[in-house]
Parts: sequence; C-alpha cells; structure tokens
Amino acid sequence: MTVTETCRIAKANAYAVAFSAEAEKNRMLESAAEALVASESEILAANEADLKNFKRGEQLRDRLMLNASRIAAIAEGLKQLRALPCPVGETIERHTTASGLEIERVRVPFGTVGIIYEARPNVTADAIGLCIKSGNAVVLRGSGDAYESNLAIVAAIKRALRASGFNPEFIQLVGDRSREGAREFMRCQSLDVLIPRGSASLIQSTLENATVPVIETGTGNCHIYLEKNADFDKALPIVVNAKTQRPSVCNAAESLVCDEAFAKPRLLEIVAALREKGVEVVGDERSREICPDIAPASEEDFDTEFLALKISVKIVNGAEEAIAFINAHSTGHSEAIVTEDRAVAEKFLREIDSACVYVNASTRFTDGFEFGFGAEMGISTQKLHARGPMGLRELTSYKFLIRGKGQIRE
Amino acid sequence: MTVTETCRIAKANAYAVAFSAEAEKNRMLESAAEALVASESEILAANEADLKNFKRGEQLRDRLMLNASRIAAIAEGLKQLRALPCPVGETIERHTTASGLEIERVRVPFGTVGIIYEARPNVTADAIGLCIKSGNAVVLRGSGDAYESNLAIVAAIKRALRASGFNPEFIQLVGDRSREGAREFMRCQSLDVLIPRGSASLIQSTLENATVPVIETGTGNCHIYLEKNADFDKALPIVVNAKTQRPSVCNAAESLVCDEAFAKPRLLEIVAALREKGVEVVGDERSREICPDIAPASEEDFDTEFLALKISVKIVNGAEEAIAFINAHSTGHSEAIVTEDRAVAEKFLREIDSACVYVNASTRFTDGFEFGFGAEMGISTQKLHARGPMGLRELTSYKFLIRGKGQIRE
Repeated sequence: MTVTETCRIAKANAYAVAFSAEAEKNRMLESAAEALVASESEILAANEADLKNFKRGEQLRDRLMLNASRIAAIAEGLKQLRALPCPVGETIERHTTASGLEIERVRVPFGTVGIIYEARPNVTADAIGLCIKSGNAVVLRGSGDAYESNLAIVAAIKRALRASGFNPEFIQLVGDRSREGAREFMRCQSLDVLIPRGSASLIQSTLENATVPVIETGTGNCHIYLEKNADFDKALPIVVNAKTQRPSVCNAAESLVCDEAFAKPRLLEIVAALREKGVEVVGDERSREICPDIAPASEEDFDTEFLALKISVKIVNGAEEAIAFINAHSTGHSEAIVTEDRAVAEKFLREIDSACVYVNASTRFTDGFEFGFGAEMGISTQKLHARGPMGLRELTSYKFLIRGKGQIRE
Repeated sequence: MTVTETCRIAKANAYAVAFSAEAEKNRMLESAAEALVASESEILAANEADLKNFKRGEQLRDRLMLNASRIAAIAEGLKQLRALPCPVGETIERHTTASGLEIERVRVPFGTVGIIYEARPNVTADAIGLCIKSGNAVVLRGSGDAYESNLAIVAAIKRALRASGFNPEFIQLVGDRSREGAREFMRCQSLDVLIPRGSASLIQSTLENATVPVIETGTGNCHIYLEKNADFDKALPIVVNAKTQRPSVCNAAESLVCDEAFAKPRLLEIVAALREKGVEVVGDERSREICPDIAPASEEDFDTEFLALKISVKIVNGAEEAIAFINAHSTGHSEAIVTEDRAVAEKFLREIDSACVYVNASTRFTDGFEFGFGAEMGISTQKLHARGPMGLRELTSYKFLIRGKGQIRE
C-alpha cells in the first residue's frame, strides 16, 4: 500500500474517533492498555527481531529496547490519559454580530495527525493514546529499525479496539519504510498536521520536505545564565542539575553563560562540580582566563545540542550581552537566569525569546507532567500554534459555527 | 542587500515594536496614517510608474491602482486599528506546580512576520499596521509589479515614524524581486512566521519552498448546500448573494450542492436567478436531467475556485452524501447549509471540516469586520494555529514564564 493510501484510510475513518464521547474514548484507552499487557510476549518477540538487526550504538539501542516493565509502564501511561479532560467540543467563545448572526468558536480535533519519529516504540503507543483522547486519526511513521515492534504494538491495540466494538482504522502505521516513503508522507494532503519527534536532523529534513503544516519539537540548546547577583547556593545545584540529571534529553542545559563579576570568584568551583559529575567543559577565551584548564570552545560548540556530558561556557558583562548571546544561539526551548536582582530577572523573562523562561530554577522542568498538564506529544520550539509542552489541547484546532436566519451580505 | 540580510535587520530591530506600550503603538499608527495622506502625490507617482509597466489584465490592474480616495481609505484603516485592543502581554493562565514553581503563560508577539503577496499595495500598509499593533517586526515581499508603490508607501511610513521619534527599522521591504529571492525569503531563519496572501499558485509555491512555519490563507472553494427542507425564500437570496455580491473574493460561493428532492421543484428558478445576474452554471448529470440547459461540469470544475461569475451544481440525496462531497472538494474555508431541519443543521455544523460553517446565511460573512473582530491579516484555511479570520490575536504566540526559588528536578 502506498503511503498516500495509508493516510487516506486514516482520514476516511477519522470520524470513528472525532465524534466519540469522552466515555467511549476512555474505553478505547483502557482496551489499548490492556491489549499491550495481554500481547506482551508477541510484542517482545517482535522487539527481539528489531534488536537483532540493530547496529546503531548502545544509547539508541536502549531507546529501542522493550521489556515487561517498560510495556507495563506504557500501558499505565495510556490508562492515565483517561483522567485528563478531553478538550474537544468546548465552546471557546460565542457572540452575536450586528447582522444577527450567532457565532460560536468551538474546539475540534485537528483531524488526521502524522507522526514521524525514530526507533522508540513507546512513542507509538503514546501517540495513539494522545490522539484517541484528542479525537484525532493518527498515521505513524516510525523508524524502519523499530518496524516489527511498532507493527506488533499497533496490531495488538487495533485488535483490542475491534474486539471492544470500535472501528480502529483511524490508526494507521506506514508500511513503506523507504526515504521516498518518508518524503511522500510529509507531503500527504490527507494529513492536517505533521509532528516530527526526534533528532535535529529528522526535524530539519521534515522542514525541508514537508508541505503539510509542521510542529517543530524538541531541539533544545538550553542556557543557564548566572547573573552577577546570582546566589551561589542556588546557582551551583541548578547548573549541575540542568546539565547532569539526564543529559540526553532536550531540556538539559548545554551552555553556561556567566557574568564576569560572578565568574571571577565562582566559576572554578562550578567547573569543578561539573567535572566531578564527568562533564567535559569547553569555553570562550575569557572563561579560560578565569579558569585556565577549560578547553577552548569552537564557534560551533555554542550552537550544538550536545545531549551528553559536555557544556560550553561563555563569559559576558551584564544582562544585555547575555540576552543577546542567548537569543542568537538558543533553539527557543528553555533558558534560565539565576539572580537575586528582581529587575534583571523580569528583563530576562521579557526579552528571552524561548518557549520557557526560568528564574532560579533548573531547565529540566520543561515537561508536560512537571507543568501539571499531563502527558505530552512533545515540546514545541516554534511559535505557530503551540509553544513549550504540547498536551491534549495543543492537539486540537477550532472552527466557527455561524447560525443565521437567512442573512445575506449587503 | 540580500533577502537574508533584510530579514536580519527586521529581526534585530523587532524590540522597537515588541516592547512598546499600547499608547506608543497607537502613536505609530497615527503617524503612519498621516504619512500616507501627506505623501499622496509621491505615492501616486510611484503607482503610476508601476501601472505603466503592468500588462496583466484589467482585474489585477484595478487591484494595483491607487488614487486619492483609496489612499485615504488605507490611512483610515490604520487609524481604526488604534481602537482594537492590543493582545500582547495578556496573562493567559497562571498556576503554581507541585514543586512550587509559579508558571505564567503570557501572550507575546510572534517576533518577525514575513508577508509574501501579489500586486496589491494596500496590503503593504495593512500588514504594517497589523504588525505594529500586534508588536511584530514585518518583512514585506510584494510583487515586483507593485514595487515602486510599495517602496513609496514604506518610505513614507518609515520617515514619519522616525520623525516621531521611533526606530522604524522593524519594518523592511525586500528589494530583491527575483524568484530566487522569493525562495530565499521562504527559508529565512530570521522569520518566525510566513503568511502568503494571494492566489492559489502563490500559496502552493510557498508550501513547496518554505521551511519557515506558514499560515495558509484565503483559497475558498466555498459550497452552499440546499437541503431538502430548505426554505426557498432563504435559499434563493443566499445562493445569489454568496455567488454574485462580490465574485472575486475568497468567501464567494463556487459550488451549489442540492438535494434532489429540493432541486426537482426549485432548481430551475435558482438557476434562472443566477443567470439573470450573468452567472455561468455548470453541473453534474443529475442536475442536467432536472435543468437541461445547465452545461456539463468537468471533474475539475468541482475543485476550482472560479473567483468569477461561474458556479458548479451537484445533486445529492441527503446530508450524508452532501457532507462527504463537500469535505472531499472544499478548501476548508466557508460552507453553508440552508435548511429548516435543526437536526440536519447540527449534523452539518459538526461534520463539515471547514473554518466557518453556516446555517441559513451567506458565506460572504467570513470576514474579520463582519465577525466583529476588526481588521484581519487573512482567512486561515489550515488548522494549525488559527482558523478563519485572523486578527491581532492570531498574530501572537505565547511563552511560559517560570519563577522559582532554586528548584532542581529530583
């Protein structure tokens, strides 16, 4: 089947979830969750086949790998979605115009959502769950490296939905694993939105090729700015936490920007604490004058999301220079200032052009669960439609319903 | 200057409008409006030069042409923007998380908005006005055919802003009028959003080439569905109004979908009324059985936005068939049902997948002013970000401000 046909099937069956009541969608989520646990051995066998052919390094292998407890956690995630309020159908606003038309703006599902992602089979189930609850048909185009795992997960969920009396064909997995197939997917008219989840190169290739509206997610070249009035007792744990608590994720810090006045007495200690956690520290010339054993940073380092135990250091003089530097190098994800000066903090909040701007907290909090929004589809780093953690509401659009009595325009 | 450099200048000066108070932005609008009137002779001379070289038909020539009263109307439009509430800075929601972080979601300008459009110099001033009020830098890439007019308008406005003590460099006009320049514009990293305004082919080329997030606007293959329980006294004026009141605009009807039970007694009269207004009527076989002098419609006709005195007719049996037909052929702009059956009306409202869905009213009302929203940048036909008329609020994004006390993630 061509990718275009696959997408068309999802769209043609979108009604099966778009117009479902909340209780029905919750029953679907429950069926799906139970199916994953019940089909554990089948899913693990498929995952085993994927792992046998996988040759791309341990970290990526770990993301591909499933086991009983991971499947249970994925199923639990689906069940938890039941408790989140369904945003579809909400009246956002209503008014009557001068011409007597009643205009109502109501929240509706996007329609058909395409997800393109890497070898992480948990994304398959998460995306299905979020799309069920937000009333969207979903077309999944995972990495070929995880194809057998994805196929087993999708088959188990669709079988269970059908057994529970639902039409499951609003869920489709793309069978074509070629590059041309990916390109066809990105240009498929049946998709209302395309969400790439994964590396910077996947996102770049999506932006290059897509004609479908895209939500850019997840690239995080996040900065921590230690202002001259920073409290060292907050600064040190925030830097260490943001860099080392989970270095492979998008909200980890990649760059430390430091006022010279704070760096002179304090940078050595901060670098020592990072080194103790195994972090490689590279920096600009001024940082190396203060702390000579910092290795020189290349220009490229300041634009790189390391996703590893490595950090770049840039010395600045004051908030003006720090803000300009951060806005020039950040990917618009999450940036933090550490300062006790309230006026400078407010200036940073106002002028930093990122989805999430922090004062005196670690960037690691940028996350749907931490924000109290529940499960998320990703962290948007664009400004169109949604910014920051994207939950159920961000998977919806709206339309205008206009009720008249025969009005025509004069 | 390259297009990329032009966009960079706009972005570098975005602060000059992004952080301005509402009163300052209103003063900018006033200066801009006065400048247009004061520079009337200079603008008209530039327009004359454009018109002299213009060789693309009377209707497009009329859109390019300026005169004193049109300039006065454009200036008046800028002045009216002062009265619209500025959405920037609004707190959309705020809460405190379990970890004690105070999270505030605030409305912010997009940053730098790119507009690509055809030979309509009024769009130049309108876009500048909407971007001033919404706090956005703006880069204008109009048609080469209107370049002298655009240059004169932009120069007059920037001169006036500078004279009033403002930095006007957040407004930039692209000088490069080549196709390669347009492509460079669509891929320019300094733009946060790109809005194409114009023909279907301009929009298609933007979708093909852009890597910047795009808001698709304006293509309207709009349908009127006459259900079997339609009131003829509403149906006839709605069809005639939607088709003929201003056939060249996006919210004009292009296709009449008619239940057979209504068509048999009534279609002849409706077609006669359309013909009286000079409308060419083409239809499917069933319509030609009922009304033999309707010309045969090609498959393509049902997917064509005529923007002219031409309409296609399709006969269906019931709402199910009508809704499926409309969803398959519409561009997602505006569709109307005429019926006295409330249940069918609600089904149509729910199931039609368009920005604006009408019951017993003409599609011609899809317009920011008619909806009571004031001036608009366009009518979005995509589902991402904004749908339907896009006013000031739709030219903004939001960001999360997070205030902590040293929190780190455990």
